[in-house]
Amino acid sequence: NGLVHIKNPYLDSMEEDVLYHLDLGTKTHNLPAMFGDIKFVCVGGSPNRMRAFAQFMHKELGLMGDGEDLADICAGTDRYAMYRAGPVLSISHGMGIPSISIMLHELIKLLHHAKCRDVTIIRIGTSGGLGIEAGSVVITDMAVDSSFKPQFEQVVLDDVVVRSTELDKNLAEELLACSKEIPDFRTLIGHTMCTYDFYEGQGRLDGALCSFSSEKKLKYLKRAYDAGVRNIEMESTAFAALCGLCGLKGESSCSRLR
Amino acid sequence: NGLVHIKNPYLDSMEEDVLYHLDLGTKTHNLPAMFGDIKFVCVGGSPNRMRAFAQFMHKELGLMGDGEDLADICAGTDRYAMYRAGPVLSISHGMGIPSISIMLHELIKLLHHAKCRDVTIIRIGTSGGLGIEAGSVVITDMAVDSSFKPQFEQVVLDDVVVRSTELDKNLAEELLACSKEIPDFRTLIGHTMCTYDFYEGQGRLDGALCSFSSEKKLKYLKRAYDAGVRNIEMESTAFAALCGLCGLKGESSCSRLR
Repeated sequence: NGLVHIKNPYLDSMEEDVLYHLDLGTKTHNLPAMFGDIKFVCVGGSPNRMRAFAQFMHKELGLMGDGEDLADICAGTDRYAMYRAGPVLSISHGMGIPSISIMLHELIKLLHHAKCRDVTIIRIGTSGGLGIEAGSVVITDMAVDSSFKPQFEQVVLDDVVVRSTELDKNLAEELLACSKEIPDFRTLIGHTMCTYDFYEGQGRLDGALCSFSSEKKLKYLKRAYDAGVRNIEMESTAFAALCGLCGLKGESSCSRLR
Repeated sequence: NGLVHIKNPYLDSMEEDVLYHLDLGTKTHNLPAMFGDIKFVCVGGSPNRMRAFAQFMHKELGLMGDGEDLADICAGTDRYAMYRAGPVLSISHGMGIPSISIMLHELIKLLHHAKCRDVTIIRIGTSGGLGIEAGSVVITDMAVDSSFKPQFEQVVLDDVVVRSTELDKNLAEELLACSKEIPDFRTLIGHTMCTYDFYEGQGRLDGALCSFSSEKKLKYLKRAYDAGVRNIEMESTAFAALCGLCGLKGESSCSRLR
């Protein structure tokens, strides 16, 4: 039926659901009226960039007005920022798995309460590229962890649950086909590695701590490349796992920033 | 000598160090002039609250002006916000271990480049309380992981390195003594549990996913309480580990929000 799947037996018996970090709720807001017609959700780390993306979509879709004054739907909180342009919702998620997880839990409940159908969600963040030209866009076929495994280890209370991180392959192919229509737009499909740390976790030599040699770093990145990794970021495994479990058609496509 | 310890043999031979997520750098900014006299750094998740805290400190310290127009030192980026009031720096770190880790790596390098001495760093965030009254402040003597162990597992490339999460006990006692001078200010010393997830990781029944029973949740929280945990948040183990390794006198004291 195209609805998102909430896998929580407690939720529908709750009198009120406060989406605390989005500053929205089932009693304070008419979520079906506000969001019922949303078909696409685009997410990225930076609030300013997600506002700029919503303004860009506003123009691309030929909506009324110049889109310069789009209001932050989550203005009552500074945890995340949310903008809409027609059927497209644009939300920031901060940096790292814990930050994107909080947002996704509340976004998925929002889509559930609003009775949205057939929603596609795309992460459009930045990432570090691996053996690819700067400016290239990597469309993720599979998110992998720091051992190159397509899995996400979620701690539930004190148990570790292993979840799949496969993304929608048809959607990846569709996005690739779209990109081919644009001249000089370097796009490729590859694995995306997701780490918990930017400096020590991604082999950077310029953190406050660095205990490995340049050679060891290069060997690790070479192994990642050989395993199919084409870019590295900090959210994709949690994104893929949560979207997959909740029946959201999800994709992650990150541009190599530097 | 009171300086912070950088444990990276590559750093001092770099021609330029760009503190990318703070929008600062050794070539673009005179870091010793800007920050050399900093003695306290306070960090918390929300940018608005860290601005409000800097304004509060500005007034408490009796500095010139009303402090309403404090400039965000990291205005060129929306990843973090940074304000100063006299010798106090107030910085936001977003939510979760990966987000605070990026900020701390760059902050520690900033303090190093600025040649700061005898700096005390305090996390003043919000947290969920465990068996304590709402509004209480927990001063952390030890940050523990979701298995109640005082350790932080850092993935370095693909190796797991276990780090200590002990905090400065004298500083904790000093903060407790200060709090006693203020009437009706509920403060206690206890362990702080740090999780990677707000919903499934902290036993919440209102996430998009919930696979455990209310009984199992209560049993887990009871075990945490019996192990000495008095509050739960999402940054303290990484904070304690990084501060400890770099010789920063660190403390985490969080108020129970709800």
